Amino acid sequence: MTDAAATPDETYSYLGPAGTFTEAALKQVPEAAGKAWRSVNNVGEALADVTSGRSIAAMIAIENSIEGGVSATQDALATVPGLRIVSEVLVPVNFVLVARPGTRLDEVRVVNAHPVAYAQSRGWLERNLPAHGHIPSSSNVQAAAALLEAGSPADAAVAPPGIVDHYDVEVLARDLGDNPNAVTRFVLVSRSRALPEPTGADKTSLIVELPSDEPGALLAMLEQFSTRGVNLSLLESRPIGDALGRYRFVVDLDGHVSDERVADALLGLRRTSPKVIFLGSYPRADQQEIEYHAKYDDEIFIEARDWLRGLLSGEPD
Amino acid sequence: MTDAAATPDETYSYLGPAGTFTEAALKQVPEAAGKAWRSVNNVGEALADVTSGRSIAAMIAIENSIEGGVSATQDALATVPGLRIVSEVLVPVNFVLVARPGTRLDEVRVVNAHPVAYAQSRGWLERNLPAHGHIPSSSNVQAAAALLEAGSPADAAVAPPGIVDHYDVEVLARDLGDNPNAVTRFVLVSRSRALPEPTGADKTSLIVELPSDEPGALLAMLEQFSTRGVNLSLLESRPIGDALGRYRFVVDLDGHVSDERVADALLGLRRTSPKVIFLGSYPRADQQEIEYHAKYDDEIFIEARDWLRGLLSGEPD
Amino acid sequence: MTDAAATPDETYSYLGPAGTFTEAALKQVPEAAGKAWRSVNNVGEALADVTSGRSIAAMIAIENSIEGGVSATQDALATVPGLRIVSEVLVPVNFVLVARPGTRLDEVRVVNAHPVAYAQSRGWLERNLPAHGHIPSSSNVQAAAALLEAGSPADAAVAPPGIVDHYDVEVLARDLGDNPNAVTRFVLVSRSRALPEPTGADKTSLIVELPSDEPGALLAMLEQFSTRGVNLSLLESRPIGDALGRYRFVVDLDGHVSDERVADALLGLRRTSPKVIFLGSYPRADQQEIEYHAKYDDEIFIEARDWLRGLLSGEPD
Amino acid sequence: MTDAAATPDETYSYLGPAGTFTEAALKQVPEAAGKAWRSVNNVGEALADVTSGRSIAAMIAIENSIEGGVSATQDALATVPGLRIVSEVLVPVNFVLVARPGTRLDEVRVVNAHPVAYAQSRGWLERNLPAHGHIPSSSNVQAAAALLEAGSPADAAVAPPGIVDHYDVEVLARDLGDNPNAVTRFVLVSRSRALPEPTGADKTSLIVELPSDEPGALLAMLEQFSTRGVNLSLLESRPIGDALGRYRFVVDLDGHVSDERVADALLGLRRTSPKVIFLGSYPRADQQEIEYHAKYDDEIFIEARDWLRGLLSGEPD
Repeated sequence: MTDAAATPDETYSYLGPAGTFTEAALKQVPEAAGKAWRSVNNVGEALADVTSGRSIAAMIAIENSIEGGVSATQDALATVPGLRIVSEVLVPVNFVLVARPGTRLDEVRVVNAHPVAYAQSRGWLERNLPAHGHIPSSSNVQAAAALLEAGSPADAAVAPPGIVDHYDVEVLARDLGDNPNAVTRFVLVSRSRALPEPTGADKTSLIVELPSDEPGALLAMLEQFSTRGVNLSLLESRPIGDALGRYRFVVDLDGHVSDERVADALLGLRRTSPKVIFLGSYPRADQQEIEYHAKYDDEIFIEARDWLRGLLSGEPD
Repeated sequence: MTDAAATPDETYSYLGPAGTFTEAALKQVPEAAGKAWRSVNNVGEALADVTSGRSIAAMIAIENSIEGGVSATQDALATVPGLRIVSEVLVPVNFVLVARPGTRLDEVRVVNAHPVAYAQSRGWLERNLPAHGHIPSSSNVQAAAALLEAGSPADAAVAPPGIVDHYDVEVLARDLGDNPNAVTRFVLVSRSRALPEPTGADKTSLIVELPSDEPGALLAMLEQFSTRGVNLSLLESRPIGDALGRYRFVVDLDGHVSDERVADALLGLRRTSPKVIFLGSYPRADQQEIEYHAKYDDEIFIEARDWLRGLLSGEPD
Repeated sequence: MTDAAATPDETYSYLGPAGTFTEAALKQVPEAAGKAWRSVNNVGEALADVTSGRSIAAMIAIENSIEGGVSATQDALATVPGLRIVSEVLVPVNFVLVARPGTRLDEVRVVNAHPVAYAQSRGWLERNLPAHGHIPSSSNVQAAAALLEAGSPADAAVAPPGIVDHYDVEVLARDLGDNPNAVTRFVLVSRSRALPEPTGADKTSLIVELPSDEPGALLAMLEQFSTRGVNLSLLESRPIGDALGRYRFVVDLDGHVSDERVADALLGLRRTSPKVIFLGSYPRADQQEIEYHAKYDDEIFIEARDWLRGLLSGEPD
Repeated sequence: MTDAAATPDETYSYLGPAGTFTEAALKQVPEAAGKAWRSVNNVGEALADVTSGRSIAAMIAIENSIEGGVSATQDALATVPGLRIVSEVLVPVNFVLVARPGTRLDEVRVVNAHPVAYAQSRGWLERNLPAHGHIPSSSNVQAAAALLEAGSPADAAVAPPGIVDHYDVEVLARDLGDNPNAVTRFVLVSRSRALPEPTGADKTSLIVELPSDEPGALLAMLEQFSTRGVNLSLLESRPIGDALGRYRFVVDLDGHVSDERVADALLGLRRTSPKVIFLGSYPRADQQEIEYHAKYDDEIFIEARDWLRGLLSGEPD
């Protein structure tokens, strides 16, 4: 798991440094085991590694059950061409409070924490360290790492559990997160055009822009899904950024593009939207099988096409 | 134009006898000129001539601008399999009042008329013959023909203008119809599987049954058209006949089945309806070019399919 | 049950003569018992009796399970103002074959029958009297009455069972109708503005015109119902008559106008349609209780209005 | 503009410290001029000032044309009861680079910046200071203020233009923002129940939860607006936070709750959504008059209600 001498085919990029939740996500990917892992500073760098060919794939956070979509990721996927999501990974959000060895909890006055981690741990901190001060960090790992720098003003840090594998810190408390069900969804992104095989428990991710001058455009987009019995598991709006009120939509839907109902919905979407980015069809992390009404079965679509072909070719009914 | 010695390929059936509006409609069909014309008694007989191969085609009335859809025709097309509409013809509804030669208008006491013709001429009759009695006839031509039978109780008949070519009657008055714009639409029906070439001014006729146990099924059917920019020029409900509240729908839509947007709507319809009968795509009698939004152009559909094919085959974007 | 000396408040009009199915329908109306019954020739006369005040109400046929909506009734209700349906009655369609006393079935050569009755009995007649001829009559009763006229060319008539109470004819056969479930729906029409009390098993009848220049207008109309959970039991299109392709819709919906969800749907309809005719809310003949989702309960509507009123008046939440 | 001795009726809270964009927003509010302004640390504190009665109103950022909705604000408004938006303010996002007096641009090695400000200025920084390092700050003002602390590791800071009124720093460069049209939308929040008067150029803000177990629930919500001709200017999803896939929607719509079409849409929404939070109707900052189809005029709604009332009361049509 080092950068040295690794060929691109063997390198995976992730938002580092070592010890982040993103690293924990990458650990769940079997094919990344034993390969070179490259720690990067932000999602832009991670995706650039992939598009430039420096890495074969990158692990990035895309959604948090509490904070919502990760805007930077959503915006990067909307603007960097040529990327595909090939798998997803769920990681429980489970913070620990760490300190330099020998520190006691009642000695903690100032806490390093990334703003998001701080927000999610605030309840615990206010109950247990009511007088604490907060220093914002640029990342969860940096919060812990900074403890070890000379002259660090902080006494403790909010960090992911994996931090103790990489830094000489001690855990003062576990399970700081206010919401025990909190989970972050990560996706592994590559340049590969090959679609993962359908498994019956798949997800398809899209980014869709709507025609700006048509009221009801979102309604029309949603109808493309509903008339084919395609359920959405995620729908987030993101500003396109050129003016207030202009949005693109980040969509996750149940099913694989090789499912007839999904393919047909994508056709409808492509026809009616000025821009549709297909981010991939890939197995759901929760392996939950997709359920849909029998009237949207593949055979129904195939039978209808055969019927139409017969009409057009002049065959008897 | 006689039945004798005609081969089926040369015979056209129509609701007779000679002199009806249906005959007037058949006169507008160039390819029927010089062929054998077979007069039949009702739409069932006309369609049976076609399905049995006795005639190559049959002309039948399908819609009247005042009375609405011709139920007998709609129901026959819904239940007799293997038929296709190959062209449509519009005939103005323009009744004349005829009588035995020598009769004066002020001598008319009793008028023969088919109930529909009577209803459409009632305003004229009440203004000009306020004291008249009405004897219902089984057809417009029979109304006139019966005048010439011995002991006819009627003095005059409401009949189509063409009647004078076939019966020894005189016209007492013209333009009896209360609505000068009244028009009847006829269709020429055959067994041919070959689709008439698209002309840009086409119509497609369907009969569609809806799933009986789904509220909103009609709404869902209409959305299949609206989401593809397909306009309907006719939508009539007809009872299926097995119970109150069960309907099939007679649909005419703008466009030809070889138009991408129409084909795609038919696919959607076929998938969601328990029964779709395709009655044909054929040129509109009024030759009015179909207008639709550029976003439903054929190229839009073709581009979307190419895009999807690329996704599925793993081609680069 | 005679016309003589009856005051309007005591007179009921119906499509006569005595012996028709319409008379059978009127017999089912408790409040008409013992009142004067006035036989009229057509639906126009029946409704004119009501609007002129000559009768307190009129019984007219509005829908047949086989033939569909009765066009003449639908068109009359769309154009004659000031009418209200106050109740509905279902009458099974059950034809008998009658003849002059002493006639045997095997002597029958020619059969009088109203075209609709003939169509519905055709299967029986072709099986049992394969060589019969048909003379069309202007009504079911007239078909039988004409048998008794001097020089009648017919030997038998298709007629309603009640005919034997009024004419000296004998029943040769019963249950001629091809469909044993066939039923005709009649409505009792008055000028009364008072709404029948809601019973929980009610129906509301409307006639709705659509804006002619808006594609999707029918879709929009149906959404007014579906978004309030209001089910339609009848939806028929009728040409307005001024041009091909212009329709009004005859609508029966489940529920009473005093039900909140129905009232709200009517508001939406009134706002979006150029013309809405309210024909009445009245108990269903089949007394089947209306079922609808709890989210469309009256209380839901009332709570929402209270909430809005609070917002507008500046009350605390 | 100081906290001392101010009564709640005279105090406005804002995300401080002095010099922030939020302060710039508050400067645009005429009624806040001359009152006490209270600087707070985060949106939670600002809203707590309002709900506790410590302040009469609070100015908070709600949306950024580049970053999208401000999640913390959206989530706070969704969970803190009793709040109302009474006005909105737009502030151009226009960063300056500041330093301790005497510093030259070519001397800058390390830059303090709030992560969002850094992201929006990155293009400028990479072009003009390609070798710079970045230290994240907890706010835009803190980035500048920290320059003046002893031992500050940074040489310059990205800050709002107003910073120079409050801190002894000098501007090294202006217009750092990569997008010259970037703008942030602020809202003034109070406990007031009184609705601002409609102006014809109003906006209404809502937070809506959807029934979780109904596919098509978002579609149904959007139809509540589209069927009343109500346009949405903002629609953002936010995770409710209890599980992946559960969302609430932040909605801004064109119009005032006292507009009939808006009121009726709110009724529909209230009936079909498990939770609707009305955040207020208030004048648009851009004063752009709302346009809508004449068929959604107030009079249309009023006429329909009068008509329905007539039906229910039994008045003649």
